[in-house]
Amino acid sequence: MEEAITRLVFQLAAILVVAKLAGEGFERFLKMPAVLGELAAGILIGPFALGAVDVPALGPLFEHLPEAIGGEEAAVPVSEGLWALAQVGSIVLLFMAGLETDLRQFLRYAKPASLVALGGVILPFGLGAGLTVAFGFADSITDVRALFVGAVMTATSIGITVRVLGDLRRLTSPEGVTILGAAVLDDVIGILILTIVVGLGDTGEIVPSEVGLVALKVFGFWLALTGIGILLASRISALLMSFKVSGAAVALALAIAFLASGLAESFGLAMIIGAFSIGLALSGTDLAHALDEPLRAVYSALVPIFFVVMGMLVDVSALSGVVTFGLVITVAAVIGKVAGSGLPALGVGFNPMGAWRIGIGMLPRGEVALIMAGIGLSKGIIGQDLYGVAILMTIITTAIAPPVLALSFRSEAAGARTEPAENEDDG
Amino acid sequence: MEEAITRLVFQLAAILVVAKLAGEGFERFLKMPAVLGELAAGILIGPFALGAVDVPALGPLFEHLPEAIGGEEAAVPVSEGLWALAQVGSIVLLFMAGLETDLRQFLRYAKPASLVALGGVILPFGLGAGLTVAFGFADSITDVRALFVGAVMTATSIGITVRVLGDLRRLTSPEGVTILGAAVLDDVIGILILTIVVGLGDTGEIVPSEVGLVALKVFGFWLALTGIGILLASRISALLMSFKVSGAAVALALAIAFLASGLAESFGLAMIIGAFSIGLALSGTDLAHALDEPLRAVYSALVPIFFVVMGMLVDVSALSGVVTFGLVITVAAVIGKVAGSGLPALGVGFNPMGAWRIGIGMLPRGEVALIMAGIGLSKGIIGQDLYGVAILMTIITTAIAPPVLALSFRSEAAGARTEPAENEDDG
Repeated sequence: MEEAITRLVFQLAAILVVAKLAGEGFERFLKMPAVLGELAAGILIGPFALGAVDVPALGPLFEHLPEAIGGEEAAVPVSEGLWALAQVGSIVLLFMAGLETDLRQFLRYAKPASLVALGGVILPFGLGAGLTVAFGFADSITDVRALFVGAVMTATSIGITVRVLGDLRRLTSPEGVTILGAAVLDDVIGILILTIVVGLGDTGEIVPSEVGLVALKVFGFWLALTGIGILLASRISALLMSFKVSGAAVALALAIAFLASGLAESFGLAMIIGAFSIGLALSGTDLAHALDEPLRAVYSALVPIFFVVMGMLVDVSALSGVVTFGLVITVAAVIGKVAGSGLPALGVGFNPMGAWRIGIGMLPRGEVALIMAGIGLSKGIIGQDLYGVAILMTIITTAIAPPVLALSFRSEAAGARTEPAENEDDG
Repeated sequence: MEEAITRLVFQLAAILVVAKLAGEGFERFLKMPAVLGELAAGILIGPFALGAVDVPALGPLFEHLPEAIGGEEAAVPVSEGLWALAQVGSIVLLFMAGLETDLRQFLRYAKPASLVALGGVILPFGLGAGLTVAFGFADSITDVRALFVGAVMTATSIGITVRVLGDLRRLTSPEGVTILGAAVLDDVIGILILTIVVGLGDTGEIVPSEVGLVALKVFGFWLALTGIGILLASRISALLMSFKVSGAAVALALAIAFLASGLAESFGLAMIIGAFSIGLALSGTDLAHALDEPLRAVYSALVPIFFVVMGMLVDVSALSGVVTFGLVITVAAVIGKVAGSGLPALGVGFNPMGAWRIGIGMLPRGEVALIMAGIGLSKGIIGQDLYGVAILMTIITTAIAPPVLALSFRSEAAGARTEPAENEDDG
């Protein structure tokens, strides 16, 4: 075990260095989000590329270790320790995203956001599942692989959308709030679909009564966790702030995030939904404000590990056979969000410019699709080929959304014909 | 692996909660250092106590997993993921301790620290080896078992000492700097002795040329790492501060700490020695100042995991057969450090109060002795009896040092008659 830890420590050093070098390069010279640099760095140094090269006295730094993941063929090609750290990073990422969301505004724009989210789920899901069958990667529309590709295409990256809208100072515009609310709902719905699909992966068949049960359990747990979280938020905040011992608020808040994540996973959701929901419940409390800076530091240390490890899962050689299908899926992913989310936006009071902005804002799949694809790969639902397709789609949509979104907001023209939500919702 | 991660996430939640509850309780009600509460919490919820109790739908939260550590009998009873996080915590702890140390003061106190370290190695080693023979646990003073007990008694826990001195805000006092320097040297010497004793376990003979080679490698690496670090410190600081991408300084500084730790382990030292040395080299730079707050947050999240896991290694039931000898060894361990380190301190300019503080500061064996004892048992050098003795000695010295040290620093009286090193050393 000592040897495994020594190797892990070298791996962490390498990961953090390439993450920041690539992130800096992408932001400064390519004017692209740093997260894309981290993904690219992961692909480059991962077990399918440079990581397999012998280092003197150490051997390959990132060896492909099938035994590390229980001997299954199509799972995570990194050690348990590194995977654990990456997962902890994803929990921190989504917990912070939840904490930074404005809960009240989130609830006020619930109705237009729901419609935008729903459209942005149905169209990409249908296109993804249908195309997977059409290109022969699945036998029928009810094949678990087809459903899985559809599920991954429903994702919207909260993290990247928030980052870009924040940089443009449009987070509180009608479009901004709608995008954010829809992105969150999208993720919950997407994860629900994922949960159902993963459940199907075991049995291979759709049993309507079972789907209903799973949906009930998953939705019920999510509503209960978020509801109880909101009810107890101010008490949790006061309790955690009352500790005198140093660092207690951060440590205990993370403990709550870990607990919510573990419970979510136990109830069949993804851990990150638990982390996001409890973060959302605690947003707006004194605690959330106090945690902002310290959590950002924990984020700096752990979240790059997650993105680089996600990049490491990509086997570039597995992509070569699926480039055509990958590009088709990517185009479908763009159409799916721009039309699927943009058309409902037109219907709830946005003008074409506003609908375009919303469609583009929903485009980047980012970390959510990566997490979903990683789950599919580690559970053996999809192989390296479809994983590669999902990654290609994620990288391209994540790369094109920020510059196009910035361009669409360059015109100062309002995006809404009327104030979309206020006269429809009394929230 | 998903199941392992879910379990880990629940474990982390439990660890952080009990760490902060116990820490708060110890500080507020018992007026004892929080770290002791974290250790106690670890013993309580560990695999040898409450951790073994079945939790509904999850099983025992901290099961004793001998297979997790490669099938060896007496090694770490926790999963690889949790052990990895604890080790990362110990690296963060020692890296921060190095960053907070005043390098110039550290060099100024190099001579008294060396004498304190040497005395704190020779006396405990002699007492331990002699008593092991006197009580019939070894045949002669050159018996490998006698030498091993002696070696374990030379250890000083940098981790616990740093934490207690930091909590007392005495890290930069003359006593604090001397203790820290001596503790580091102690570990370098202790690990050297351990390497030799373990080597004897295989051959039964001392080969002087081999001893010399090991000593050269270990000391040479340590001096090279620290020296190169000091030479490059201002350049490293400027480079890391020049990054624009968010969180780069923290992430890259941690990468350097991980790299130094991995190199130290590869060269036969403990990882924590590498982390401390590179932190020491970077102390006093602009980077060290900029890292202070963000690293404190990372510390809050990860370091409690290390201390709770250290507590988890203790099997209280292993102590029952060897209580008498264990107590004798414990008393010898106290005398060995208080006299062995305290008397040289008197000789280099500290007054009796200062010498007492230094002797007590050198007392806790902590993680270093636990790791050494585990190696001895797993290699068959000592049996369960002497292992239990080492554990008892470690627990008691680790438990009594923090409150006694806190008490000794309650008086504001200076501990040095003269500025100890200034008229002896021109550093």
